[in-house]
Amino acid sequence: MSLMTERGTAARSGPNPGRGGHAASTSGRPAPEPTYEGDFVLDEHLLLDCGRTLANPTLHYAVYGRLNAARDNAVLVCHALSGSAQVGQWWPELFAPGGLLRLDHDCVLCVNLLGSCYGSTGPGSVDPETGRTYGPDFPLISIRDNVRAQGRLLDSLGIRRLRLVLGGSIGGMQALEWSIVHPDRVERAAIIAVAPLGAMGLALNHLQRRAIQQDPDWAGGRYLPQRPPLRGLALARQIAMLSYKAPLLFDERFGRNPNRNGEDPRGLDDLGGGLSGGRYDIAGYLDHQGQRFVERFDANAYLAILRTMETWDPLHGHASPAEAFAAIRARLTFIGISSDWLFPPGDVRELADTIRRAGVHTEYREMTSDHGHDAFLAEQATLAQLLQ
Amino acid sequence: MSLMTERGTAARSGPNPGRGGHAASTSGRPAPEPTYEGDFVLDEHLLLDCGRTLANPTLHYAVYGRLNAARDNAVLVCHALSGSAQVGQWWPELFAPGGLLRLDHDCVLCVNLLGSCYGSTGPGSVDPETGRTYGPDFPLISIRDNVRAQGRLLDSLGIRRLRLVLGGSIGGMQALEWSIVHPDRVERAAIIAVAPLGAMGLALNHLQRRAIQQDPDWAGGRYLPQRPPLRGLALARQIAMLSYKAPLLFDERFGRNPNRNGEDPRGLDDLGGGLSGGRYDIAGYLDHQGQRFVERFDANAYLAILRTMETWDPLHGHASPAEAFAAIRARLTFIGISSDWLFPPGDVRELADTIRRAGVHTEYREMTSDHGHDAFLAEQATLAQLLQ
Repeated sequence: MSLMTERGTAARSGPNPGRGGHAASTSGRPAPEPTYEGDFVLDEHLLLDCGRTLANPTLHYAVYGRLNAARDNAVLVCHALSGSAQVGQWWPELFAPGGLLRLDHDCVLCVNLLGSCYGSTGPGSVDPETGRTYGPDFPLISIRDNVRAQGRLLDSLGIRRLRLVLGGSIGGMQALEWSIVHPDRVERAAIIAVAPLGAMGLALNHLQRRAIQQDPDWAGGRYLPQRPPLRGLALARQIAMLSYKAPLLFDERFGRNPNRNGEDPRGLDDLGGGLSGGRYDIAGYLDHQGQRFVERFDANAYLAILRTMETWDPLHGHASPAEAFAAIRARLTFIGISSDWLFPPGDVRELADTIRRAGVHTEYREMTSDHGHDAFLAEQATLAQLLQ
Repeated sequence: MSLMTERGTAARSGPNPGRGGHAASTSGRPAPEPTYEGDFVLDEHLLLDCGRTLANPTLHYAVYGRLNAARDNAVLVCHALSGSAQVGQWWPELFAPGGLLRLDHDCVLCVNLLGSCYGSTGPGSVDPETGRTYGPDFPLISIRDNVRAQGRLLDSLGIRRLRLVLGGSIGGMQALEWSIVHPDRVERAAIIAVAPLGAMGLALNHLQRRAIQQDPDWAGGRYLPQRPPLRGLALARQIAMLSYKAPLLFDERFGRNPNRNGEDPRGLDDLGGGLSGGRYDIAGYLDHQGQRFVERFDANAYLAILRTMETWDPLHGHASPAEAFAAIRARLTFIGISSDWLFPPGDVRELADTIRRAGVHTEYREMTSDHGHDAFLAEQATLAQLLQ
């Protein structure tokens, strides 16, 4: 969900912001550099919730600042669907002086999700047991699987306890799971703009999956590296973009304007006919977003994380909320975004209320924004203030 | 937008409701039969707003009830995107005894949109000037072009004046245009759940177009009749379905339930892998909707009407609202639907307010419904009451 640069006219032609896909903040704050970025390889098989195992998976991670001698200054940031471990790139405002994350005090870690294409084991990795790329055989990875694997990584770094774990969207799913799976290791968790995906969110995911799987180049998931299903992935991203943003913001920013390159929505199309014609500005924007995305993301990785996202439900398999959340010891802060229709604030509040009733120290705060779901990336200063 | 039958378990396996794609009402009211259904061929070329002409276009239409001797009992119903002239099929509740349309008094007409695949001239028709199917060469037809052509049809029937013209969605666009283009022929117009499409609506249309045009079987619009772009059209319909319905309704109806045929969203997919797996219920529903739609609609017709829809803006080309709406003599009733996010009620109200300020007798009423945009088809009795 990289949308931080599209405010002005120049934004669309801006350079690809690099691997993590996230540009510098709108304030122009320079992104902090990791003190370390590297791989951690589990020395054993990871038993997954789905019943399968992942052989010696790799976790790619980044560290900002330094662990103190007491090893009690660690903060874990969890990223969203298409993010990377380079949290400095996509959440720079949270590192602002005097802000939420203070690199003179904190040691901030971020771990790439399993299933991703940014360094951790994913569908594009070679399965050490077969010597072949996983491709469509990549197993379903749950949020909890990720959190368990992240726990091993922190063990290896000698980090026993986190003063804070936080994330938005899928990142928030991980933050809550951390407080469930590792109850004695989390002091505070901030869970932003997330709840189990509702029916509309499941619908949006399904159509994104269809868009990719209908691309003839997808080839059942065994596509050639030089011929990936670009059009399907671009369309999937475009569908997702609708749900990351709010109608009011689209109206303010694009309205019914013709595309800024001068196309005429009432004119002929490039076939000389009348079936499509020139684009509106919002269409040009979406096409640009689709194009940018396929330059940085992989279709099977996208499918894998969609599934990680949609199968998450902390109540699943439990007799009651009390049972599901009884173990939590952390203080929880939930943030809902007023204009979010992918994870509506009412759903976030309801999840917070359910967990509070289970006896957990839980508070809910609402972020007022026209940005929609993406506000946690687009309005970082506001978010940081709300989290203080 | 046929959604009237999906309330129960049995609904999904129900038969295709026929050409118009609309089933009998949920109350089981039998659909009234047309007293006449046939074609009208313009005896001249239709000069279009886009500057091109359409040679001797055909309008397919249906008539319910009978024209009285004074010829002053005519009502025109205008259909939405994928509707047909058979209004009795898709709006049966409006014909309920004592209701809005009374066949003992009224003569109700409905005309299939140009560009459609239900009898009027569209991309699948043969261009008499070339002897070839129009295909992607089919010109952009405006709402106003339709209304002008419909005026000729009514001339041929000896109908000078309409006591009422009404429609929802694209049908409402036509109803308003009737009162602008033929000011002395309309007594009252009811414009339901519509305004010029906002940026989110334009975005949704664009992605539907992409879905169709990315299907390799689309073949630049010159697809073979025996090999139409079914998967792209199905995906387009599925994207549209999201915008016809409201999140709350989806949550109530489908929630996070697994697909009712027993699929397991946490299970393996049919490739034995983990990239997709079993569907959720909402996904099964959407797939079913896509499948039903491709059995009854044509991809190029869909593209043509999307464009008719999105280019509609009655203010376009006018210096002011006063100028655009000055001619209107009809009494206008606008209906917004509380949960509609394709044509948000605020947009409908704003259009009504703008027209009222231009000196037109205009009222706005809001329909409270969880159904979203589709409420004008799904809750017909409520709508009919609101229109009385």
